Amino acid sequence: MKIIVLGATGTIGSAVADALAVRHEVVRASRHSKVRVDTQDPSSVEALFETITQVDAVVSCAGDVKEMQTSSMGAFESLGEKQLQFGFQRIWAQFRLIQLCARFLRNSGSLTLTSGQLSNHPAPGTAVASMMGCSLESLVRSAALELPRGLRVNAVSPGYVKETLEKFGMDSQPGMPAVTLAQAYVQAVEGLMNGMVIGPKGDYQ
Amino acid sequence: MKIIVLGATGTIGSAVADALAVRHEVVRASRHSKVRVDTQDPSSVEALFETITQVDAVVSCAGDVKEMQTSSMGAFESLGEKQLQFGFQRIWAQFRLIQLCARFLRNSGSLTLTSGQLSNHPAPGTAVASMMGCSLESLVRSAALELPRGLRVNAVSPGYVKETLEKFGMDSQPGMPAVTLAQAYVQAVEGLMNGMVIGPKGDYQ
Repeated sequence: MKIIVLGATGTIGSAVADALAVRHEVVRASRHSKVRVDTQDPSSVEALFETITQVDAVVSCAGDVKEMQTSSMGAFESLGEKQLQFGFQRIWAQFRLIQLCARFLRNSGSLTLTSGQLSNHPAPGTAVASMMGCSLESLVRSAALELPRGLRVNAVSPGYVKETLEKFGMDSQPGMPAVTLAQAYVQAVEGLMNGMVIGPKGDYQ
Repeated sequence: MKIIVLGATGTIGSAVADALAVRHEVVRASRHSKVRVDTQDPSSVEALFETITQVDAVVSCAGDVKEMQTSSMGAFESLGEKQLQFGFQRIWAQFRLIQLCARFLRNSGSLTLTSGQLSNHPAPGTAVASMMGCSLESLVRSAALELPRGLRVNAVSPGYVKETLEKFGMDSQPGMPAVTLAQAYVQAVEGLMNGMVIGPKGDYQ
């Protein structure tokens, strides 16, 4: 298959691109790659699809944990329309990504998005991020019912990633190495599931 | 208890207000009541809290099924930023409602919101409404972790309501009468649960 990995320079994205490259042709795209794309800008994604054609699958691992923290997190009473709009714009970008995949992907292709464990396990300060995760998972379930031409859409919910915990100076013991997590994305691309949220160990329902 | 019911002239809201009035003092507020409020406008809700004081609980049954259909529903490929913004504004209003309750309710008070079954059971055409439902349920779970002074927040997910199905000329057989559903709201107000989504039969997790 020909597969575009969005956010391919990130911790998860680079591991996913490596894992997919074992059996597939992988195009690595990100804000920092030679194949440049800003996943938050639908027109940038559209331009990418017009350049890289005959694509079977897209995997999006784009997302900046640090930016999410500074732009969306804070005590519940302190959160305002600004933080919600940040979340809204990110959900809108993924909404558009699904619509673009419905237009540009080859028959029976797939899109795999990235959710987060905050959707089911909110913590103090994470209300907006939790809502974003739940919106994304709901979007995946809903869009799956309406995609044409045998297309599929799923999300992987990565849990704690060992390398990310290390980067933030936290205890990395409970984290899963990105190379292990990457197999959940491979499963989403090579499998037949549709409208599913896949856990870091590959379980889904 | 002194309880404000928002959307008290609607099918669900009037049944909930009647059920609560058996044991409590109920203030019925809506766009069409003598106690007027536009629940989509946070400043209107704030003005209400400045007029009606010493409130123990707020129940929001506001929401217009017809408006939701015309403003948010449609084939997935046809949905755009306009439909998403409609959903976003409604979620933002509920977000602000929780923040206002955190300020104005008496100690150990509660807020009960209304979700919808589309959050867990999306259908073709309902992507935005499903996302709104999931966002709201996530918001309830998140906010519950941070509310001060023993305050609680929950949502009731009403399922099909008999009277609403009748109004839209649909088969009302699978619907639950609003008077039965109202007991789920009573349970949320009089019980101790926090951060829960309560089903029409009063079950929750």
